[in-house]
Amino acid sequence: MTIPSDIRIAQEATLLPISDIANGLEIETIEPYGDNKAKLPLSLLENQKKQGKIILVTAINPTPAGEGKSTLTVGLGQALNKIGEQAIVALREPSLGPTMGVKGGACGGGYSQVVPMEDINLHFTGDLHAITTAHNALAAIIDNHIHQGNDLQLDSRKVQWKRVLDMNDRALRDIVIGLGGPINGSPRESGFDITVASEIMAVLCLASDLKDLRHRLSEIVVGYNTDSEPVTVSDLKVEGALALLLKDALKPNLVQTLENTPAIIHGGPFANIAHGCNSVIATKMAAGLSDYVVTEAGFGADLGAEKFLNIKTRALGIDPSLVVIVATVRALKMHGGVAKDALKTENVEALNQGIANLEKHVETVRSFGLPAVVAINKFTHDTDAEIQAIFDWAQANDVAVELADVWANGGEGGRDLANRVIREIGEHPATFTRLYTPEQTIREKITTIAKTVYGATGVEFSPVAKKQLKELRPDWELFDVCMAKTQYSLSDDPKELGRPKDFTISVRELRVSAGAKFIVVLTGNVMTMPGLPKEPAALKMDIDQEGKVIGLF
Amino acid sequence: MTIPSDIRIAQEATLLPISDIANGLEIETIEPYGDNKAKLPLSLLENQKKQGKIILVTAINPTPAGEGKSTLTVGLGQALNKIGEQAIVALREPSLGPTMGVKGGACGGGYSQVVPMEDINLHFTGDLHAITTAHNALAAIIDNHIHQGNDLQLDSRKVQWKRVLDMNDRALRDIVIGLGGPINGSPRESGFDITVASEIMAVLCLASDLKDLRHRLSEIVVGYNTDSEPVTVSDLKVEGALALLLKDALKPNLVQTLENTPAIIHGGPFANIAHGCNSVIATKMAAGLSDYVVTEAGFGADLGAEKFLNIKTRALGIDPSLVVIVATVRALKMHGGVAKDALKTENVEALNQGIANLEKHVETVRSFGLPAVVAINKFTHDTDAEIQAIFDWAQANDVAVELADVWANGGEGGRDLANRVIREIGEHPATFTRLYTPEQTIREKITTIAKTVYGATGVEFSPVAKKQLKELRPDWELFDVCMAKTQYSLSDDPKELGRPKDFTISVRELRVSAGAKFIVVLTGNVMTMPGLPKEPAALKMDIDQEGKVIGLF
Repeated sequence: MTIPSDIRIAQEATLLPISDIANGLEIETIEPYGDNKAKLPLSLLENQKKQGKIILVTAINPTPAGEGKSTLTVGLGQALNKIGEQAIVALREPSLGPTMGVKGGACGGGYSQVVPMEDINLHFTGDLHAITTAHNALAAIIDNHIHQGNDLQLDSRKVQWKRVLDMNDRALRDIVIGLGGPINGSPRESGFDITVASEIMAVLCLASDLKDLRHRLSEIVVGYNTDSEPVTVSDLKVEGALALLLKDALKPNLVQTLENTPAIIHGGPFANIAHGCNSVIATKMAAGLSDYVVTEAGFGADLGAEKFLNIKTRALGIDPSLVVIVATVRALKMHGGVAKDALKTENVEALNQGIANLEKHVETVRSFGLPAVVAINKFTHDTDAEIQAIFDWAQANDVAVELADVWANGGEGGRDLANRVIREIGEHPATFTRLYTPEQTIREKITTIAKTVYGATGVEFSPVAKKQLKELRPDWELFDVCMAKTQYSLSDDPKELGRPKDFTISVRELRVSAGAKFIVVLTGNVMTMPGLPKEPAALKMDIDQEGKVIGLF
Repeated sequence: MTIPSDIRIAQEATLLPISDIANGLEIETIEPYGDNKAKLPLSLLENQKKQGKIILVTAINPTPAGEGKSTLTVGLGQALNKIGEQAIVALREPSLGPTMGVKGGACGGGYSQVVPMEDINLHFTGDLHAITTAHNALAAIIDNHIHQGNDLQLDSRKVQWKRVLDMNDRALRDIVIGLGGPINGSPRESGFDITVASEIMAVLCLASDLKDLRHRLSEIVVGYNTDSEPVTVSDLKVEGALALLLKDALKPNLVQTLENTPAIIHGGPFANIAHGCNSVIATKMAAGLSDYVVTEAGFGADLGAEKFLNIKTRALGIDPSLVVIVATVRALKMHGGVAKDALKTENVEALNQGIANLEKHVETVRSFGLPAVVAINKFTHDTDAEIQAIFDWAQANDVAVELADVWANGGEGGRDLANRVIREIGEHPATFTRLYTPEQTIREKITTIAKTVYGATGVEFSPVAKKQLKELRPDWELFDVCMAKTQYSLSDDPKELGRPKDFTISVRELRVSAGAKFIVVLTGNVMTMPGLPKEPAALKMDIDQEGKVIGLF
């Protein structure tokens, strides 16, 4: 069977009017954005009728072979509805920048997609544009403050607030601004990040309501004054303006899957320098509207799930019920040492080696007191012997595992997985505990994650990081930690696949995200502004005279 | 009588559901954006039932005293409906950048506003964000092309395509990008303009349909190669991607006035380096839906109306029927030499001197074969003697003039003006001719405008401009000219108020906007990225817990 392209499948889908999707959820008022998208009012957070169970979808450490986490999240949502349960999918919003660069959307794929993918992958309802605008308004206010007399005595060498664009644009990473003489301000070094790396994105995704959003915005540290004291948004008096610019972006977006399963798509912070999950408001709202919420976190379980469980759930106030860990035969073989061009050849030995990576993530999930189900996302060249090897391992280690074929078959291909998830939730009630408490020191929190989640023997702090640890304000010690580490390995070396042993984690630097209320812990270099490839995906994109989208994946 | 603030009036207005406004215009399908905004489908341009008459609202040269052109445009639209005619208002979209900076919106004022002004003044339906994105995607593609081998041999010193943000941010005017080593590209000088200065904004506003938009995008010149040949978007192969990014932005937006008069708000190019009018598509669509379209052009008649009549109408394909020229007693007194702090004092002599400015604009309008009506926008401190002086001048010179009080009284305050406009259209059918033909040289076109519209004795071209005139490609000679001149004076010296005599216009430089199909003619320095004032308006903005907007004007 040949599966058409994602855009072809999406364009041929029969979408329900978004008002019908809303009616199905007994939502009385929506703000439609065209026929197939809507904003949901924040009033839905009040007097919620349901307390849906949260199913988190995460994955093994990503490889170039692909895992299909979003596809599986959408497919599981569809499958749950297929077996008679009521489920909502809660996803992150795609970033437009990478869409222009690398082929591959963020709406799932095959017969497990959220639609209209042409809109969701581009401007959608404008949330990312609002965040870009709020972020850059703050940047303009900062440089204007310095230019107009600098009452706050901001040290222009210590302004930490850069600018952002939702674009892959390497030329903007390191720039000098304010050139051209006094009427253009003072020259200083700065740069642009991609919008999803903005602290405002993280803040929007962790805020519980408009008031909390405004408060968190006010606490953002934009830089330091000449006495090395932090200068915040509240010092600049623009938390009101920023909250105003975000008033609509704070409302979650309702769309649907190819099988008309409701999908709430809202927020999408980076999974390295931020926490990589859709918004707290969206997940909470979804839980109030349905019996099950299937949601995902960025990268592998060592980054995305860890942050979902330690950071997001604290703001969310709902304990998750189960974690699905997505793996593929191909990716496990890569973790076992197979090169990308040899993935089509059966190799049970390498697979068995690579399973060590999956095994670690199962242990991690269990260390949070949560049941785990492994979902094997089926690919064409998987052999029976390879699949059997995974099931053998699972049986020997008492791990729940199911095969899923949601890319080719939609919800139908996820029936076994959906049934298993429901059964596991019933048979293994979660006893959820976070890995650290707010009262532990930042150093302790980092060490706990490194040892428990990564399997490291310890943490080495650079002289800079040690100094920063000493100088943390007491209220910042209560923050969560947000690890910025390579997604490709459990260690901080992207080349160490599988399950590395006997390694330490090197912490280079800390950064305070006081609005998000976490300390970003940098291990190695973290890229916050991607570049475009030699042949950007944009070159294939087009639109015909009737407005039909061409070449978008 | 005390008039409440604009935002107070707007928030207390009774808006009709936008579907009701659409129904009133017999529009069958809209794309709602919430309850009070909608995108109109481009299919409305086909088989249009009506051929509405176009009424252009322009003004004398702007002064710090204010003219209230947008207010009058909205008010006249309301007034026409009040006297039993069917009229639509067609306006430009406000730019968010200045909204953050200087108090004062772009939605009209008092009881003549378009609503919901909180949305229209901020993100609206995302059109400007889409333009920002398309513009910056092209910029990223350019720098990526150079970085990845530069097959087109773009001369990085001659890249003319800057980046844009819808923000007032002086620190971004002159920057150096690509610093930080080879992985970040090559260092070069560049900068940011405000989004409304993007050629893509001009292109979007002049395009007749999606196909024309795509074609115009392909023709945009981004810079020159090492042989000094122009490099276009089509050379970079991204006209399809850019058109795709603009697919929704190309659709006009339907809103309403405080009195539920339909308003189509779409596009807003700068009125100096671009043509300063709302989109051709919006105006054409409005003409197909109503008997009268009241629309405006930027700055005074020497810039906005000249460009509307010479540039926009060529793309529009509809001749306008009448031009309203807005003036105020206050502004005329400033043109007569009165300082801003002395405007409350009666001064008939200064007023009579300042009328010379108005008189020139009446002559200009008539030189296009169009009837003119002067609208005196009433202010509190205007005295009877001052008003009478204007009427005396009008009678002596056979000029139609009416007093309008639409700020304080809405449509009711514009009845006389509305009646007069209808009468003049009936009694003085337009014999519209543009001031130049495409076949005239660019030099001739510039000289014609300088002499006929500004009243200059001639034009002086700088050595650079002379060289550029010589090097123009033959197909570019057929373009229109888009004059970038100070808006404050008929001359190119902003201090020369009233009606300057015996002056020449100095042309410094030409720039090719091949997508917009005009040659920008720069006289003096033109600011394309504004800055923020010492106390930006953003500092007063806020939103309360219930989502009510505070401090937006």
